[in-house]
Amino acid sequence: MSKPLAGIKVIEIAQEIQGPFAALFLSDLGAEITKVENRETGDLSRWLLAGMLGGPNVKNAQISHYFIAMNRGKRSITVDLKKPQGVEVIRRLAKTHDVVLTNYRPGVLDRLGLGYDEIRKINPRIIYAQASSWGPRGPWVSRPSRDTLAQAASGLMSKTGMPSDPPLAAGAAIADQAGALTLAGGVLAALFARERTGEGQRVDASIYGTMIAAQGFELNYTSMTGTEPPKAGRGHPFLHGVWGAYRTKDGYICIAGVDDKRWADFCRVMGIEAMQNDPEFENVTRNFHGDKIEKVLDEIFPKRTTREWLEELTAVDILVTEVASHKDVLASEQARINGYIMQLDHPVAGKMTVTGCPVSLNGEITTEAGPVSEHGQHTEEILLEAGYTWEEIAALREAEAI
Amino acid sequence: MSKPLAGIKVIEIAQEIQGPFAALFLSDLGAEITKVENRETGDLSRWLLAGMLGGPNVKNAQISHYFIAMNRGKRSITVDLKKPQGVEVIRRLAKTHDVVLTNYRPGVLDRLGLGYDEIRKINPRIIYAQASSWGPRGPWVSRPSRDTLAQAASGLMSKTGMPSDPPLAAGAAIADQAGALTLAGGVLAALFARERTGEGQRVDASIYGTMIAAQGFELNYTSMTGTEPPKAGRGHPFLHGVWGAYRTKDGYICIAGVDDKRWADFCRVMGIEAMQNDPEFENVTRNFHGDKIEKVLDEIFPKRTTREWLEELTAVDILVTEVASHKDVLASEQARINGYIMQLDHPVAGKMTVTGCPVSLNGEITTEAGPVSEHGQHTEEILLEAGYTWEEIAALREAEAI
Repeated sequence: MSKPLAGIKVIEIAQEIQGPFAALFLSDLGAEITKVENRETGDLSRWLLAGMLGGPNVKNAQISHYFIAMNRGKRSITVDLKKPQGVEVIRRLAKTHDVVLTNYRPGVLDRLGLGYDEIRKINPRIIYAQASSWGPRGPWVSRPSRDTLAQAASGLMSKTGMPSDPPLAAGAAIADQAGALTLAGGVLAALFARERTGEGQRVDASIYGTMIAAQGFELNYTSMTGTEPPKAGRGHPFLHGVWGAYRTKDGYICIAGVDDKRWADFCRVMGIEAMQNDPEFENVTRNFHGDKIEKVLDEIFPKRTTREWLEELTAVDILVTEVASHKDVLASEQARINGYIMQLDHPVAGKMTVTGCPVSLNGEITTEAGPVSEHGQHTEEILLEAGYTWEEIAALREAEAI
Repeated sequence: MSKPLAGIKVIEIAQEIQGPFAALFLSDLGAEITKVENRETGDLSRWLLAGMLGGPNVKNAQISHYFIAMNRGKRSITVDLKKPQGVEVIRRLAKTHDVVLTNYRPGVLDRLGLGYDEIRKINPRIIYAQASSWGPRGPWVSRPSRDTLAQAASGLMSKTGMPSDPPLAAGAAIADQAGALTLAGGVLAALFARERTGEGQRVDASIYGTMIAAQGFELNYTSMTGTEPPKAGRGHPFLHGVWGAYRTKDGYICIAGVDDKRWADFCRVMGIEAMQNDPEFENVTRNFHGDKIEKVLDEIFPKRTTREWLEELTAVDILVTEVASHKDVLASEQARINGYIMQLDHPVAGKMTVTGCPVSLNGEITTEAGPVSEHGQHTEEILLEAGYTWEEIAALREAEAI
């Protein structure tokens, strides 16, 4: 069975994470992505962090881990959107594409003559997807932002960290990434609706709104009680005790709760049988107010290796896992077998492991990543498909519009 | 214009977060959700944390902030899936629904006779969506898990926190939430494909796979360089310095980078003009290795209030925001105007503010949340729609199958 979005063509006018990752998700589901890049620099992610981190393979800006992560399997066309001929290129591409997707600040494409009202005149079936920081309306609509500001403004940062830490972000750009998924969801819903109505529509999704929606469990508690929960510490704002990571002899193990049914076994394996009937460790205390149990476990877990604890605790159905490093993830059989990591054959860097797709359809799992395009590699090919003649392409080159 | 999924009916056999939030996202896009709940307890989220946290309004287990967050706007039917008559109810519902969505452990519904192979015989157009912890294949397929184990196993936890902290989870259940979004994305793609092919398909998405995909930027760096990046500290693994939260006179402000163009203005506003030409604070140092600048800013930010800094820094286009508490988010005009928070009129708890939808379509923003169902409130209504007679419903009640 072919992938569900086979035949769907997306113009991506975007860079860094939210827009490109949304298009990547659509690409993994079968869409064909026409990535529009700035004529001079390309997507900022081609060079923004490359070479700054000191690793041996990232010094060549053409081999950016950042760009590869967001843009494998896409075709690249360079366009100067500040030139009228460049704007006209997008307008012509819009005739033969299904989706225009951007994470430029709201209003930027409108000012260039590429807003939804203009594009729908060219192709009323187009889905027009606007990623943003703060949403399509309101006093903050034009405020600049980046991932970490959405983590800060959505309340997540105020709850991440140990009590003595300053507010912390999560250890990855999760607001940008999750905001890409909600945008892609909106595009997919609009594609579905278009099959029934024949009409496209505009889709908006923001990283701020996404991070709020992703904290419904937590924010609604505050809404209903008027109380700010404590910081997560090494658990979760609502869950402290047998919840979170503990140091072992050779690493860290993470535990995710011990219910009444498993409590006796847990006490036996940990060698804390005396605590089994201690009223202080009844369920509520054990999972929700567990400062005391944290101290006890801090003494015991370091006595054995992570592997030893995993074997013993898993045998009695306790929810535990190793705290994995990046290297552990990249070596994970479970990740490989499900296509969560893929193999990529890069024309310059050679074979490498890269992150893959979290969704599989009909059990079909993709393990080979699509190729990574050079800056503007498909400019002519894409223009020819859109009906440009070689003469017109030459004129665009002459005008430095592509 | 009606919502894109108007007319699409989803059977949700799920509880807690990943399954229910996936269905909620589809509901916000217009789908109608038939939530199947355990006959005795209902969704665990109806009572799992309610009453344990001490707030005034959560003591009544019928008013769970957790349940409301994931299940507003859904109808509820109770079914005992351990009884053959209960299984038969689901099989009959599958004839008139478009999607079956579950986050029961892979294999559980199969053993009940409700696996994809059985359901597709009843309705070949059905989309069958399986949420999971670890994915549909591999050695970990049956391992139990919860949100925090996906944060641990995906490498995120190893990078979250200050250098001296143990590995930390983010301050919310972001793996479950993001894993819901990828599952919903797969369902939407399959719904689109069904319009073209007439056939349903199976969709799988896991919280482990989702958290790996959400760290492509970070994991691919390690893949390409063989180097583990440092912990995020108060920035991001790649970004330390003018990146993260600083204490002010009355709270915390978060800053997201200062580029060359804005550096002089930043130095002027902060009163650190002497540093403007210091080679130690050239771009790379400033954003990427900024321990020294952190110490300088730690001395300066506490001299004024967050609001004062926001005004001065925003005026020169520096990317900053307040570190918001949950209460700040719930009071945010920006969140309200974009539907990121909604108003809910709860039959028992009264009017309250709840988290909303991060996506808007055609600029139409929903500000009123759909009603929250009582446990089994729509059992009879749903069965009547599926063609059951009152006599059959009475027999199911008699058998304690509903």
